[in-house]
Amino acid sequence: MSDGNLKSLEVCFTPALFKTFEVEGKIVVLVDILRATSTICTALHYGVREIIPVGSVKEAKRYKSLGYIVAGERNGKILPFADFGNSPFNFMNDRVAGQSIVYSTTNGTKAIQMAEGCSQLVIGSYLNHRVLTDWLLSQNKDVLVLCSGWKNKFNLEDTLFAGALCKTLLKSHKFKTICDSVLASVDLWQLAQKDILAYIQKAAHRNRLRKLGLDDVLQYCHTFDAAPVVPLYKGNSIFAG
Amino acid sequence: MSDGNLKSLEVCFTPALFKTFEVEGKIVVLVDILRATSTICTALHYGVREIIPVGSVKEAKRYKSLGYIVAGERNGKILPFADFGNSPFNFMNDRVAGQSIVYSTTNGTKAIQMAEGCSQLVIGSYLNHRVLTDWLLSQNKDVLVLCSGWKNKFNLEDTLFAGALCKTLLKSHKFKTICDSVLASVDLWQLAQKDILAYIQKAAHRNRLRKLGLDDVLQYCHTFDAAPVVPLYKGNSIFAG
Repeated sequence: MSDGNLKSLEVCFTPALFKTFEVEGKIVVLVDILRATSTICTALHYGVREIIPVGSVKEAKRYKSLGYIVAGERNGKILPFADFGNSPFNFMNDRVAGQSIVYSTTNGTKAIQMAEGCSQLVIGSYLNHRVLTDWLLSQNKDVLVLCSGWKNKFNLEDTLFAGALCKTLLKSHKFKTICDSVLASVDLWQLAQKDILAYIQKAAHRNRLRKLGLDDVLQYCHTFDAAPVVPLYKGNSIFAG
Repeated sequence: MSDGNLKSLEVCFTPALFKTFEVEGKIVVLVDILRATSTICTALHYGVREIIPVGSVKEAKRYKSLGYIVAGERNGKILPFADFGNSPFNFMNDRVAGQSIVYSTTNGTKAIQMAEGCSQLVIGSYLNHRVLTDWLLSQNKDVLVLCSGWKNKFNLEDTLFAGALCKTLLKSHKFKTICDSVLASVDLWQLAQKDILAYIQKAAHRNRLRKLGLDDVLQYCHTFDAAPVVPLYKGNSIFAG
């Protein structure tokens, strides 16, 4: 394939930088490893019918009053009126299979709403790495990886996954990049990949999770291909594509 | 020194993220390796009396009409009315020694104006690395490194310098960090430091510079301690501190 036919690859480190990127015609891959996108992949893999992401606590509450099952957290703590928080482990049971789940988190669901206007929004995590890269390679479109970060700041755990994904896509020789964030994230991934859990120990969010007693999901959220689905955002919901 | 007495260290990858950081009481280190902060260090080291940074082309023009020497570029090209562009080599001569120079660039001078409200703004580059770190260690204040980036996007060349600076400061055991951007930039610096020029070849801005025929400054701008000054922003000017 000649260079002119290669698709472009970019990484946006936080939603606060998203407006500096052109999105038209591009596939946006949303990443929030700890934990929204890991949880969405898990839920759809375990049979949830659809995930309805909502940005505000108020809106989540409104859905609750309409009878929906609501999952949600702010700053890592479960919303008081929610049925459960955003641990992927909550979605591995019969209660949620076949259901529509309303989902609101600190970082992830806000980013979903920002990405409107792109060609297609897809959910990325280690859990669906292989099916996601296969799907992206089949689409023949430019790709922009949007890391959710932490309160609009850069975070390591999303960046490392962006690096893992970009490395696989670049190896296919179907993509090119002139984006420094791609180069940085691939290099960081190459440093971290031998022992991703040891590397992530030093990430700031790791400390936040430990303080909240939520670090039980860390290993699961860094497991390749444990939830092989391609979650696509269509209408106002996320379905398994 | 106990952990409680350690000063905090943070890195902000682009001006677009600056509002997500608290700045009160902190020293902000502004970084624009290619080329504003390298040029400012050079100019003050070679005897320029002060640098007056201005954000807009209009304001730069107004100063020119008042008789000031004006240096400035946009997107790497010299402003048509300016006396010269922003290559550090322009400032190594007798014409500028003792003068006040008005200076306006694509990224750097805008970032200077954003940082207002911090305790102290200081200019950082490889050219003043050692005197800058010595000065920072003497101040006993929290430090935030502000990378100018490229049009509000992350860039590798500023990030690598942030990593070099943070590595030195953390080695002193006077600083602590919970900022993922610090961790990432230090790791990238450690990857790059053996052959910084080879590493920077892959940076996007490198390609921009080559296209503009401006890559003659690359080696100079990555030379440690060639312009040992501590440029401080006071009033509306930058002086050697």
